Parts: sequence; C-alpha cells; structure tokens
Amino acid sequence: MAIITPKPMSGFPELLPEQQRVFNRCIDIIRRNFELSGFTPIETPSVERKEVLTSKGADEKEIYALARLFAGEGESPDTEFALHFDLTVPLARYVALHKEKLVFPFRRYQIQKVWRGERPQKGRYRELYQCDIDAIGRGSLGLLNDAEMPAVIHRIFTEMGIGDFVIRINNRRLLQGFYHWLGVSADHIADTLRTVDKLEKIGRDKVVAELVARVQLDEAIAGQILDFVADDRPVDALLTHLASLPAMSDALFAQGVDELRTVAAGVRSLGVPDSDFTIDLRIARGLGYYTGTVYETKLLAHPELGSICSGGRYDDLASYFTNEKLPGVGISIGLSRIAIALIEAGVLKTDAQTPSRVLVTVLDPSHMSDYLRIASSLRTAGVACEVYFEKGRVGDQLKYADRKRIHFAIIAGEDEFAAGRLKLKNMRTGEESTGSLDEIVNLTTSDR
Amino acid sequence: MAIITPKPMSGFPELLPEQQRVFNRCIDIIRRNFELSGFTPIETPSVERKEVLTSKGADEKEIYALARLFAGEGESPDTEFALHFDLTVPLARYVALHKEKLVFPFRRYQIQKVWRGERPQKGRYRELYQCDIDAIGRGSLGLLNDAEMPAVIHRIFTEMGIGDFVIRINNRRLLQGFYHWLGVSADHIADTLRTVDKLEKIGRDKVVAELVARVQLDEAIAGQILDFVADDRPVDALLTHLASLPAMSDALFAQGVDELRTVAAGVRSLGVPDSDFTIDLRIARGLGYYTGTVYETKLLAHPELGSICSGGRYDDLASYFTNEKLPGVGISIGLSRIAIALIEAGVLKTDAQTPSRVLVTVLDPSHMSDYLRIASSLRTAGVACEVYFEKGRVGDQLKYADRKRIHFAIIAGEDEFAAGRLKLKNMRTGEESTGSLDEIVNLTTSDR
Repeated sequence: MAIITPKPMSGFPELLPEQQRVFNRCIDIIRRNFELSGFTPIETPSVERKEVLTSKGADEKEIYALARLFAGEGESPDTEFALHFDLTVPLARYVALHKEKLVFPFRRYQIQKVWRGERPQKGRYRELYQCDIDAIGRGSLGLLNDAEMPAVIHRIFTEMGIGDFVIRINNRRLLQGFYHWLGVSADHIADTLRTVDKLEKIGRDKVVAELVARVQLDEAIAGQILDFVADDRPVDALLTHLASLPAMSDALFAQGVDELRTVAAGVRSLGVPDSDFTIDLRIARGLGYYTGTVYETKLLAHPELGSICSGGRYDDLASYFTNEKLPGVGISIGLSRIAIALIEAGVLKTDAQTPSRVLVTVLDPSHMSDYLRIASSLRTAGVACEVYFEKGRVGDQLKYADRKRIHFAIIAGEDEFAAGRLKLKNMRTGEESTGSLDEIVNLTTSDR
Repeated sequence: MAIITPKPMSGFPELLPEQQRVFNRCIDIIRRNFELSGFTPIETPSVERKEVLTSKGADEKEIYALARLFAGEGESPDTEFALHFDLTVPLARYVALHKEKLVFPFRRYQIQKVWRGERPQKGRYRELYQCDIDAIGRGSLGLLNDAEMPAVIHRIFTEMGIGDFVIRINNRRLLQGFYHWLGVSADHIADTLRTVDKLEKIGRDKVVAELVARVQLDEAIAGQILDFVADDRPVDALLTHLASLPAMSDALFAQGVDELRTVAAGVRSLGVPDSDFTIDLRIARGLGYYTGTVYETKLLAHPELGSICSGGRYDDLASYFTNEKLPGVGISIGLSRIAIALIEAGVLKTDAQTPSRVLVTVLDPSHMSDYLRIASSLRTAGVACEVYFEKGRVGDQLKYADRKRIHFAIIAGEDEFAAGRLKLKNMRTGEESTGSLDEIVNLTTSDR
C-alpha cells in the first residue's frame, strides 16, 4: 500500500499537546471573563449562504466556498454555502433572524474559527480563532456599554499574563468633528480618517504627503491634523485640553469629547488602572462601519503583533438583513495570532503534555482491580490521573511520568496493599510519602 | 438597499442563547471528564488535504471541498483542501506527522465540528460536533485501556443527567472465532459480522434471510448465529456460559472471551455499576477497522437516537500515513445529535438567556461610578453580572432581569448610597435584603 506522507498545511496552524493546553487555557480565561460581564455564548454555523457573506461587498477573494468533492456525472459541485471570514456578519444574520426571541440589549460572545483564503505568510492564518463580544440594542444602546469593552479586555489580558499592554481609546465623532471644523469637506472626511489611521504604519511624512496628494488637503491643514492627533497627554489632561479647543464650537466634535469623557470615566470605575488605558487620537479603525468609540490594544513588548484586540461602536449592525436599527458596540481578540506568537516567544509557557496529575503505576498486575479503584477515587475527587497499562518495570513507568511531566506517581505492590498504605512520589521534588488511599488523594489535591 | 432576508440553513444547526448554554454545559462536562481520565486535548485544522481524507476510500460523496469563491480570470477555484468528515482520519494524520514529539501511549481527546455533505433530514446534520477519545500505543497497547472508555462515558452521561443508559460491550474476536468454529469460511466472516450487526434495525427474520441468500450460509448455521447473539444473560453468567462452550476450542473465540472478561472486570473496578453496562453479543460495529472490543450506548428512554456513543479497539490507526504500527482504542460521542434532540425533548433543561447572576439596576445616573464599582466587585468575586445602561424606570429594569431570568437585582439610589446599604432583590422568590457591598456580594454567591 502506498503511504501518503503527512505534511503540515501552510496557514492552518496545528499545535502539539503541551501547546494546545496553553491555548485552551487562554480560551478558558476569555470565556470566563466574557461570562462574568454578562455576555452569553452563541455559536453560528461555520458557513453562511454566499449572498449573506458578500452582502457587504467584502474582499471577495478571501472567501472559501464549499464544493462537493465528488459531484455525480452532470451535477454541479457548487453549494450555496461558504465559510465565514469573521464573526460580525454571522452575528448580524443571527440577530436579524432570531430577534423576536432575544431580549435586548443582547450581549453575546462568540469564540469560533474563521477562514480566509489568504496567501499564507508568517503570522497570517487561513484558519484562526476569533473571540468577539458585542452588546446590541434595539433602536438605541446606552453609551456606558462602550466602557465595558476595555474593562473585560483588561481582565482577560491581565489574567493571561501576556505582559504590559495598553488599551487605546478614541472616538470617531471627535475626529470627524475636528476635520469638519478645520474645513475638510464632507466628501473627504472618511478618506482623511482612513489615511491618518495609517500613521503608525507609514509615518507622519507619508501620511501628510498622501493627505495632500490624494485627499487634496492643504499642507497646512494636514499638518494641523497630524499635530492634533499626536497629542499624547494623560487621559484627564487631554480631556481638559480638548474641551478648551475652539473646535468645541463644532457639535460633532463636542459630542465626541463628551462621549470620550464618559467612556474614560466608566473604564476607570470598572477597575482599569490609568497605566493600562489611554486616549490615543491617532487611531480611527479603517472601517467606515464604526461611528463613535474605537479601540485598539498594544502589547508593549510585542509591537510587531500590531493591535491584539480592536473594536468599536457602530450605528447599525444588520442593515443588510433587516430594516430595524440595531446599534451596538463590540471588540474582538484575534486569539490564534496572539497565542501562537506568544507561545513561540515563551511568554505563554507550556507545561505538561497531559492533564494527568497522577500516574498510578502497576507493580503487580494481579492487583489490577485495586489500581483501577485508586484511579476511580482520584477522579471522583477531581484529580486527573491515568493508570500505566503497558508492560514495563516501575522505573520505566516513572520515566513515562517524567516525560509527560506528571506531578505525582502512586506506587503500590503486595506489601503496600496488605498494609493499606500506598506510596506517593512527587516527581518534581523526588519526595515520597505514604498513607491510606484517602490521605494520598488529599496529598495530590493540596500539594501544589 | 435590498434586504437579504435571513433564513435557517438546513442541516446546519443553530441554537438560541438559552439552548447554547445547555449545549456548552454538555461540552464542559465532556471535557472535564476526558481530562480527569488523563486524555489531553488536541485540535486539528478543519481541513485536510484531499488525498488524506480519501486515503481510506471513504464515501466520497459526503465530503465538502474548499473552493475559492472568487477565483480570478482563468484561475481554477479548486484548492487542495477539504473539510474533515470525522476526527479519526485527522488523528491518524496528526499522530503520523508528530509521532516523534509525542509520548506513547498517547491519550488524546478532540472536541470539534465535522462536516458531511448529506441531504438534510431530521436528526442528520451537515455540521456536527464529535467528541472523541483515543489511547494510541506505539507497537502495542495494554488491553485495560479498553476498560477506560466505558468508565469515562459513564461519568459523562451520569453527570449530564440524560436519563438511564446502558453501555453495551462486545468483542469482535469472539464473534469471528465463533463464526469460524461454526464453519463459516474466512471469506464470509466479515460479511456475516456486518449483516448480523443490522439485527436491531431490520429484525431476526431479515437477517437470517440475508445470511442465507447473500452470504450463502446454511439456514441452520444462520439460526445458530442468531440464537447465540441473542443471549442476554447478565455479565458474569454470560461470561461463565461462554467459557463453557465447545467453541472455546477456537483460539480466537477463547481470546475474545478472555478479553471480554478482563475488560468487564476493569469496567466494574472503575466504578461502573452492573445496571449501566452489559455484554451484548449482537453488536459488531459495521466497520472492518475494529478488531477487538467494541462499544455502543443505548439511551433507554430514547431508542430512536440509536447508539449515542460508539467505538472500539483497532490494530492500526495510521496505516495510510506511516508503516509504524499504532494500535489503539477509542470512543466517540456524537454530541450535536444527542444534545439537540434532548434539549427539544426537554430532557436537557434550558434556563436563563444569560450567564448574568445579578443585574445592577441604575436608579440615579449621577451615581454611575458607584454602579460600575459594584459590578466590578461582583466580577472580581466571580459573580457574573451586568449593569442596566439603558433608559428605563426601575420597574422596566426588573422586567428586563425577569425576561433574562437573572437571579438577583441590586437596587440602590441616593438614600442607599448615603447609608452605605444596598438593596438586593431575589427575582425568583421576591425576597429583599439589605447590606453593605461586601455583604451583598456574599449573598449573591451563597444563596442558590
């Protein structure tokens, strides 16, 4: 028989067990914190109808459609489905479809894979996890919801232990109002926003050049814009400064400043320290979709990752699927990219290749029922364990425990069973204890 | 703008939030118990190369391939990938690819979606969750691993509370040995196994007819086979009876009886009561893949679901991908089918539409920072909560809590903040308490 030699699939990440356990721990932290803030889980199918996915005119080249691998003679392989490329379009379709059965504001989270037909390159995946939360209102949605997003994110990244990070908050109304006040014509405001948003990528000179050459702003105005967004005063000083500007005569600018103040105060009351969030006038998020608050998150030791968590406020979630106005605010963690990079960098540390905390060794197979009962007792007490069922001397069995980095080994033979005293070996310290089954079970739960 | 009216996608199940929470609870129970038994999580990409998926000659019509939705002019939409239809082929490919980095026996679990291009019908899904565990040896694998599978499954279904179930265990060597001893020729044994396996679906008469007409067995031998497999004595009585049969002269039969005895004793030592497992000589699992122990699981009140959890022992996991012999044993829960059916039947009960245990109502928006601090304290104490950020009198806010079935509401205005005493309302009993923030947080954690 011909062997098909398996090889990795470029762009489709796959982890070894010890890495997968770290990745799953990240997902657990994200889930727990999403739920702590009252976001409820939903899951949409991996596919949507093609017309749903392309309703917005997304970059169509990036979508994977489903085709029947072996369509019959004369049958088309085409199906009506394609894999979703984000979780926002599926959310919009979900809410539009089920809105009569949901209670609004609807706070949902979704942790799922998305697929993108990208040309694979370092850090770009064709299959990746996204972890999204959104709060959706029916008709309206209170501004303070915007303060919840950074607060949840802050709890998550703190608990994940990925190092210092800063959540950067801005408001698109404020930017739009400022550009309007400067005399940028309504037609050019969106383009100005998009161009200034590239500042960190391409630098001030190139942004000014683009604003002048392509967007056709005065060089003086382009300069004023760049000076304005570069202001990096601390939160309160910046808010005071903004409120003192002549641009406050612009109603949109004034509204933006006011929203930003409310959101910043809320973020602080929700426990995010000033060291971990900032108002950053440079960020605008390229997407026209966002209308008010916008977020990005920078991991200080890993700027090459770009924003590890982004989002914002939007006026209308599902305009392609319903006439009902559904405003919302949301944020998204691109988990695969972050977690895999930080596992590779050693920031997220891998540990054992197994969840087993205890290996029950087998010295005397005639006592197998005893070994199995020990395992069953450990499990009932919530201690993960396995029994060594293979042939091998106790030395080989302990070597197995070592290789899998199992914390404890239980060792018992004829004598131990006769005395009702089992031996417990701590594989990390080499320390040995003896005790009854109950005592041993206790030791494995209490000793860290 | 034209609205695309969203509609459900047949064969792609989608749950409402209160159902999703029950579904996720099932997954949590499965994960926790898999890990308690020392199975480590892995996750493979949703796709494999087409030649990997078709290596076994699977029913090719059921596979969804990935195609680029918008390939450029003159470009083929084809890709080299297709969605996996089970988790066994991906496991085989994973182990073959990574075997030098794994420690054997390798005990892994995998909880992922699989896709099948089926014509949709009631209870048949195109996208569904499978939850698999397998123990894989390198060269050999101890028989007692076969006893772990029913033990894990027993813990899971007991904790899920799906009602009475019976795990049915058999051994294919025993059946093959018996048929050989009866004189069924080697060529016809596999076909005999497959045909007898249909017994519960099509009944005794049709099986006998098929065995005679198609498999060309003597009618007397067909009758003996059907009598043999119908023997439903209790475990120990059946094992004693089998060991007394003249067929024990057949080495394969004797080995099968011996294996079955060892596995049954192990299952019992691992804590599975006699009421919940049985030896059932009728089951053989259709797949030629299995070589020894086989399992099926019957949910007594829902026979229409068929086997809710099946698996068995195999000699060689990855013969298509490596020359190295990798024997294993595994079992799989088809979760989507079971959970969705049992949610619809009301066996798995839905509860709140949100994880929030507490709603922090807002009486006086000038105290917003206090409300946010209350929420933050609750979350830090592990209590899921949300703040009501929308406009609305307290009555509307409590109605919102009711509709989402949130257990508690915290109510505080000017007077309460001045006195440092918050009000807590139990939304289920109507009972009200007052206390400091710490006392209130405590009440929400302790009161069930």
